Amino acid sequence: MYEIVLIRHGESEYNRQNLFTGWSDPDLTEKGIHEAREAGKMLKEAGYTFDLAFASVLKRSIKTLHLVLEELDLLWIPVQKSWKLNERHYGALQGLSKSETALKYGDEQLQIWRRSLSVRPPMLEPDDPRYARNDRRYQEVRPGDIPRGESLEDTVHRVGDFWGNRIVPLVRKKERVLISAHGNTLRALIKYMEDIDETALLHLNIPTGIPLVYELDDDVKPIRRFYLGEPEKVEAKAREVANQGKVSE
Amino acid sequence: MYEIVLIRHGESEYNRQNLFTGWSDPDLTEKGIHEAREAGKMLKEAGYTFDLAFASVLKRSIKTLHLVLEELDLLWIPVQKSWKLNERHYGALQGLSKSETALKYGDEQLQIWRRSLSVRPPMLEPDDPRYARNDRRYQEVRPGDIPRGESLEDTVHRVGDFWGNRIVPLVRKKERVLISAHGNTLRALIKYMEDIDETALLHLNIPTGIPLVYELDDDVKPIRRFYLGEPEKVEAKAREVANQGKVSE
Repeated sequence: MYEIVLIRHGESEYNRQNLFTGWSDPDLTEKGIHEAREAGKMLKEAGYTFDLAFASVLKRSIKTLHLVLEELDLLWIPVQKSWKLNERHYGALQGLSKSETALKYGDEQLQIWRRSLSVRPPMLEPDDPRYARNDRRYQEVRPGDIPRGESLEDTVHRVGDFWGNRIVPLVRKKERVLISAHGNTLRALIKYMEDIDETALLHLNIPTGIPLVYELDDDVKPIRRFYLGEPEKVEAKAREVANQGKVSE
Repeated sequence: MYEIVLIRHGESEYNRQNLFTGWSDPDLTEKGIHEAREAGKMLKEAGYTFDLAFASVLKRSIKTLHLVLEELDLLWIPVQKSWKLNERHYGALQGLSKSETALKYGDEQLQIWRRSLSVRPPMLEPDDPRYARNDRRYQEVRPGDIPRGESLEDTVHRVGDFWGNRIVPLVRKKERVLISAHGNTLRALIKYMEDIDETALLHLNIPTGIPLVYELDDDVKPIRRFYLGEPEKVEAKAREVANQGKVSE
């Protein structure tokens, strides 16, 4: 049996202000730092340990991972950071609040962008300072591969490459893998493990800061999955994420 | 011209209590955390940036690096952690205070251990819980290569392998490298760059938390080296390290 643990980063400054985040790089809030430490403590109490870990190249994911590893006394394990685990790119919506967006584009359009699998947000213009071509952390990516806005489907596709080429081979070598990432990239990873359909994917709400454990068979398909922590708390947190009407993306 | 920056980690819990540290793994103190953040700010103000970074597998070195990278907004760069950059292994002295050691072995012997290049400390017994063979982070090291105590010469030797095989090839590719490490491993790195003799090596006191910049020629030999920050502060800190009579190792 293989095992893999996923963690969604805690609250960021943009989450707190209810702004579309995507590839923007806000820091964790104090609450987000606390959530990450709590996740680390839960894993420690439950006796988990890891051989290596993944994060995106966004600091809310990396800091969450570092705080979890610190609680586990595992700062020394190898950490691989990849843009392929970045949050869905929200194009020209990045940095806008939900209310600004609703005002500018209408509430119906906003819901389509947030709840559709294949519709892309308005793309960033090539000269937009938010376009990551100008960011050194993406210098090794082929310019054509740097998105200016993604549908959820686009995000799922790029995460798929990474899952198949980089994560699965390690899991098959029985490496115990921890992944700290974002709401939509974790949805994508879960899709590859569980083969869920589009509707289920869109309704999948992953609570922040709660370790999600997958036990996997020889084909890297789930035998069982569960959140760590008291079921009532996990439930409450998932409801919070689903109901808050916050952007959190 | 190539460039490389070295940082000695800030104060750890063992430093504060004046205990021999070596491969023991105490956390940074609040002062140590502050020193690391200050180092990051100095580098940022002076306009430095990096392509990748190294640390040992000891948390005082890793946390120092993470704090520096956070200040530089470079948490996303690749970080390689290796036991070859660990502090000199202080054998059976690890965890003892200087006064305990002086009482147990005599002050003269203590000075020999601290100030000689080739004399080893008393070795750890194979069944000592401090012997790192039982520590998962060294599982991939050949058992014969895990020390039970090292002379400064032993440390210099193992750092040499790492310098030649892992760091120099990257420097020659013009990668801007940052290394967060320990008093004796930094001494060793400096020895390889500067070809200094044994006496100079023993008298080299590297202040904690002050970035040390090396500008290197095509043969990876120094053109010039300098500490960042106001010269008076650097001087004062180096004197402090030299005079404090503290173990700090």
